[in-house]
Amino acid sequence: MKKYNFNAGPCVLPREAIASAIEAIQDFDNTGIGILEISHRTPGWERVMKETADLWRELLNIPDNYKVLFLTGGASTQFFEVAANLLNKKAAYMQTGVWAKKAIKEAKFYGEVEVIASSEDKNYSYIPKNYTIPADVDYLHITTNNTIYGTEMHEDIDSPVTLVADMSSDIMSCPVDISKYGLIYGGAQKNVGPAGVSFVIVREDILGKIDRKLPAMVDYRSHISEDSMYNTPPVFSIFVMHETLKWVKNMGGVGVMHKLNKEKAAILYDVIDQSKMFVGTAAKEDRSLMNVCFVMADEHKDKEAAFLEFAKERGMVGIKGHRLVGGFRASIYNACPREAVEALAQCIRDFEDEIN
Amino acid sequence: MKKYNFNAGPCVLPREAIASAIEAIQDFDNTGIGILEISHRTPGWERVMKETADLWRELLNIPDNYKVLFLTGGASTQFFEVAANLLNKKAAYMQTGVWAKKAIKEAKFYGEVEVIASSEDKNYSYIPKNYTIPADVDYLHITTNNTIYGTEMHEDIDSPVTLVADMSSDIMSCPVDISKYGLIYGGAQKNVGPAGVSFVIVREDILGKIDRKLPAMVDYRSHISEDSMYNTPPVFSIFVMHETLKWVKNMGGVGVMHKLNKEKAAILYDVIDQSKMFVGTAAKEDRSLMNVCFVMADEHKDKEAAFLEFAKERGMVGIKGHRLVGGFRASIYNACPREAVEALAQCIRDFEDEIN
Repeated sequence: MKKYNFNAGPCVLPREAIASAIEAIQDFDNTGIGILEISHRTPGWERVMKETADLWRELLNIPDNYKVLFLTGGASTQFFEVAANLLNKKAAYMQTGVWAKKAIKEAKFYGEVEVIASSEDKNYSYIPKNYTIPADVDYLHITTNNTIYGTEMHEDIDSPVTLVADMSSDIMSCPVDISKYGLIYGGAQKNVGPAGVSFVIVREDILGKIDRKLPAMVDYRSHISEDSMYNTPPVFSIFVMHETLKWVKNMGGVGVMHKLNKEKAAILYDVIDQSKMFVGTAAKEDRSLMNVCFVMADEHKDKEAAFLEFAKERGMVGIKGHRLVGGFRASIYNACPREAVEALAQCIRDFEDEIN
Repeated sequence: MKKYNFNAGPCVLPREAIASAIEAIQDFDNTGIGILEISHRTPGWERVMKETADLWRELLNIPDNYKVLFLTGGASTQFFEVAANLLNKKAAYMQTGVWAKKAIKEAKFYGEVEVIASSEDKNYSYIPKNYTIPADVDYLHITTNNTIYGTEMHEDIDSPVTLVADMSSDIMSCPVDISKYGLIYGGAQKNVGPAGVSFVIVREDILGKIDRKLPAMVDYRSHISEDSMYNTPPVFSIFVMHETLKWVKNMGGVGVMHKLNKEKAAILYDVIDQSKMFVGTAAKEDRSLMNVCFVMADEHKDKEAAFLEFAKERGMVGIKGHRLVGGFRASIYNACPREAVEALAQCIRDFEDEIN
């Protein structure tokens, strides 16, 4: 049976990237040695590192005064490293979900944190709109897409202070005005690769302004000075990132991805909105194009397990909602094909028809 | 042409592990989803995580009061994390190479460091023998194998204080009496897998004795409490580690690996010792079974480039020595077949015959 992969991350990747990965494990760059077994100091690998950074620059139109880094430890490591590198006295955070909350917790090791807005009152089902960004903070931290709750900020914020964004789950899904940000970070395992590598895009002039000294691996400047090869990089994960970005480029870039993602999301949100049985959980204007979260309407709550089973029988994988929201979640990142989204939409309609 | 891979790490892996990796990328655990695209919260993956830890326990006979963790960031990250988690006032370090030196530098962020022995005077070509371990330190840190210089400690030290060891480049190559150590760590990319994952074996009672509070990702206890799934683990690298350890087990375990490694190393050291042209760089009693370092004798120094070319034409990959030692280095970790070692030995003999 054909499987449709809606995992929230790690998640479906472009078939082209998978095929290249298999090929490279057998023989990387015609060296007679596989990608898992090459030295990271070979010219062929140094070329891939550079090309990967160049693809980031090209696809997101990253200005010259920004560096692109490939690190490890996921967004969770960035939660503390961002603060370690940037937080002198006080930082402002928007609390739009549990990941944002974790970022706040880690930042507090390094200074004062002011939560300027939170949507915790409604289980993070919306993006706060009314807030004031203090002028006296080192930076404002936001989470642009909230994987668990299916909410997303659809516009780049204009911030009077350095803007830092966790874009783990919507990077490369739409155009971003990089110049509005001081630092953007995330784990790769949604739109840009498999687990095992994370990215940091940082405007160089915001670094080096803190008083504390940092261990080499925590200090972004160590990684900048060695082009992300301060130590052995996660070679294979970066290789698959390289192939994934090549696919984005071949598809036409982030503008095209955005168009396709809007179309895919609309298919699902439309079927949910037309349904009498299913209800979307996120505020309509803040709905994520990446994670479509929905539950059964109150009078149908008892049918959730039945729907999961129904969907499973039709090849749907990974649509159980996160326990903090319940119900269902379809993660439809860049590499999730429209065909999968249409199959899930049909599955929702069929279930409702069958029950009625 | 057949290639013989002597890379210092990342390096050659068992063919069985490579074959399993390719298979899993196509379909993991008969789920219809590839290993790069599965959720790390699926039962099949949780089983692999557990089995990997169990293989470590079984192969190294790890006592029950130790935990095995799979982290990221390589040994370089452990340089500071070890100190962050264990160093209250003062620690002792043995300085047996530049990696040990880096570990010392990172530890200094957290307390006083006493270097109790160093072989820097002779370019780290030997392992210091005469030293006193102070009783008033939080731990003693050693590096059991020095990849760059080809030296190795061949016996577990008896330490009156907690013993911490960087075993990046000789873990799983020989039996270790784990009970003599408080903590053992390393990057996987020599004997236990590809780049992108690191391991920490820690006796639980040594944790929680420091005054400072740590970010979650730095605190070993966060990872212990979540069985190395505090955040998304580097799934694929751990999978290949799992397959590599299965191979070690199928080969007969670390005792058998040690026997094979001694035989492989003897083949190369014998040909070097019999040669009039090549000279080993490490003190004989401290020679590494993992990294065989050698140079041209002074009167033949001008032939180094010629030998590299000669070897390259015969399929030898990665035998250029590290710039800090010069000459040549053959890294012959567990997965390096005896056949490769014999081919290199023959190559050395042939070169000498051809020149004479």
